[in-house]
Amino acid sequence: MDKQPILKVRGKEFGGRGLPLICAPLVGENAEALKRELEKVLPQEPDLLEWRLDFFDSVRDFDAVVRVAQTLRRRVGRLVGELPLLFTIRSEKEGGHPIPLTSEERVGLYEAVCQAGVVDLLDFELGEGEENFRRVRETSRRHGVKLMGSFHDFAGTPAPEQIMAKFRQGERMGADLVKVAVMPQTAEDVLTLLQVTLEGRKSLTIPVITVAMGNYGSLTRMCGWVFGSSVTFAMGENSSAPGQIPIDELKTVLKVMQKALGGYLSESWIP
Amino acid sequence: MDKQPILKVRGKEFGGRGLPLICAPLVGENAEALKRELEKVLPQEPDLLEWRLDFFDSVRDFDAVVRVAQTLRRRVGRLVGELPLLFTIRSEKEGGHPIPLTSEERVGLYEAVCQAGVVDLLDFELGEGEENFRRVRETSRRHGVKLMGSFHDFAGTPAPEQIMAKFRQGERMGADLVKVAVMPQTAEDVLTLLQVTLEGRKSLTIPVITVAMGNYGSLTRMCGWVFGSSVTFAMGENSSAPGQIPIDELKTVLKVMQKALGGYLSESWIP
Repeated sequence: MDKQPILKVRGKEFGGRGLPLICAPLVGENAEALKRELEKVLPQEPDLLEWRLDFFDSVRDFDAVVRVAQTLRRRVGRLVGELPLLFTIRSEKEGGHPIPLTSEERVGLYEAVCQAGVVDLLDFELGEGEENFRRVRETSRRHGVKLMGSFHDFAGTPAPEQIMAKFRQGERMGADLVKVAVMPQTAEDVLTLLQVTLEGRKSLTIPVITVAMGNYGSLTRMCGWVFGSSVTFAMGENSSAPGQIPIDELKTVLKVMQKALGGYLSESWIP
Repeated sequence: MDKQPILKVRGKEFGGRGLPLICAPLVGENAEALKRELEKVLPQEPDLLEWRLDFFDSVRDFDAVVRVAQTLRRRVGRLVGELPLLFTIRSEKEGGHPIPLTSEERVGLYEAVCQAGVVDLLDFELGEGEENFRRVRETSRRHGVKLMGSFHDFAGTPAPEQIMAKFRQGERMGADLVKVAVMPQTAEDVLTLLQVTLEGRKSLTIPVITVAMGNYGSLTRMCGWVFGSSVTFAMGENSSAPGQIPIDELKTVLKVMQKALGGYLSESWIP
C-alpha cells in the first residue's frame, strides 16, 4: 500500500515519487523590483514562487502587501497560468532580512493575506511559538491556505534526533508540510541530513522539505528528492539563501538524474 | 596538513580534491570491435580507459591480448595523447562475462601484459586469494604498473564494517587503490555506501573508488566524489555494469556540481 503523504496545491504535488518541485524565491524590495524579478523568473518555469516578505520595504503596510500580491498573482496568471504562491517571513535569527514586525504583527500579516485570498501557502517558523502557530494555522485553514512549518539553522547541523523532533513538532502543530534547513560543516552533516530526510519521509504523515545550505550543501538541492525531500529552492533571478543554484542548471541535473534513476522512485525505495 | 593519498598515473590524479576521474569501459569482443568502440569513446574525453578483458573473445591467447593492447595504445596516442589504460578481468561471480581462464591463468595473463609494458593499471579482485594477489602485486610493481584491488557485490550492500574490511584488505595486500561496488536495495544502502566511502577516504593510505550500481545507485556515480570516491565509471559507447550513465550526461552534472560546490573540496570537508 502506498502510504506517501501527498499534498496538492494548484495542481502541484508535494511529496510524490517524481522530481521535486522547484521553488524560486522573489526578494524584490518593492513592487517595481518584484515585477522585474517575476519577468526574469517565470520563463525559467519554476513549480512554485516564494515571496520573501522580509525583503519587502513596505512589509508593515498590510494593504500594500495585499495589493502587490494581487498584482503578482495577475501577472503570473497572464504569463504562465496558475502557480502556487508561498509567502514567507523569515526571521532574522533564522537567516532572514531584518524587519520591523513583532511576532504578533507577523501573525496579523499572515491573517491579512489569508483573508484577502492572495496566497496558497504560508511558511511560518516553528520557533514563533505554539500560540502564534495555532493562530496562523486556524486562519489559514479557514481560508484554504496550506501551512508549512519551518526551522532553519544557519550555524550547523543538529543531531538527527533533533531534526526529527522538528519534523514531529510541525506535524503535531498541524502543519501541512514541514521544512528543515541546516548548515553543514562536514561531509557527514550532508549525509545526516539526507538520512533524516529519508526517515522523515517514511514516518511522517506530511511531506518534508530539507535543505543543506552553503556550497557543499548544494548537493542536497540536487539530490535530496531521491531521499524524500519534496521541494528544492533554486535561483530564478536572485538567491535567498546560501548555496542556491540557478534553476536552469538545477533542471539540467535533475533531467539526467531522472533518466538515470528511471523516472520515478519506487515503493521499495521510498514507501 | 594535507594527508590525502594521491596516486598519479600518466598525469591523472587519483584521490585529489577536484572532480573524479571518468573511466570509460571498452567491452568489444575482438580487435575490430574494440577499435570501433575506441573511436566513439575517445571524442568524449574520458580520463582513463578500462579494457574489460573478460569480454574479449581471444582472452586465452596472451599474445593476441598484448597485440591488441599495443594497437589500442597507439591509437589512443595518435588520437588524444596519453591516457591511463586499466585492464580488468572481472570474474563471473563478481558480475563479469564468463571466461575460460582459471585464477592461475588470470595471473599469467596479467604477468604477460605487465611484462609487455602495455598497461598502466590492473584491476585484480580481492577474492582471487592472497597468493594470487601477491603474485600480481609483485609483477606489477616490478614493471611499474599500478594495482587496484576490487570487490563487487551484485546482490546487495554489505554492512559498513564489511565494506571497510574490503578497503583494509586491499590496503594490507599492497594495492595502490581499492574499489568496492555494491547493489543498493534501498535508499539507506546508497547513504551507507557514501558514508563508508567518506570513512575510507579519511582513514586509508590509498585512494578509494566506490560505486552503488543499478538505477538508484547511479546517483553515486554523480556525487560519490564529494564523499571521496576518486573514479566514476561512465558509458562511452557501451556500459559494463548496471547504472552507468553516458559520459556527456555525467560531465554536464559534474560541471554544475563543481560550480555549485566551489571547485575543490576543502580540507575541512575531506581531510
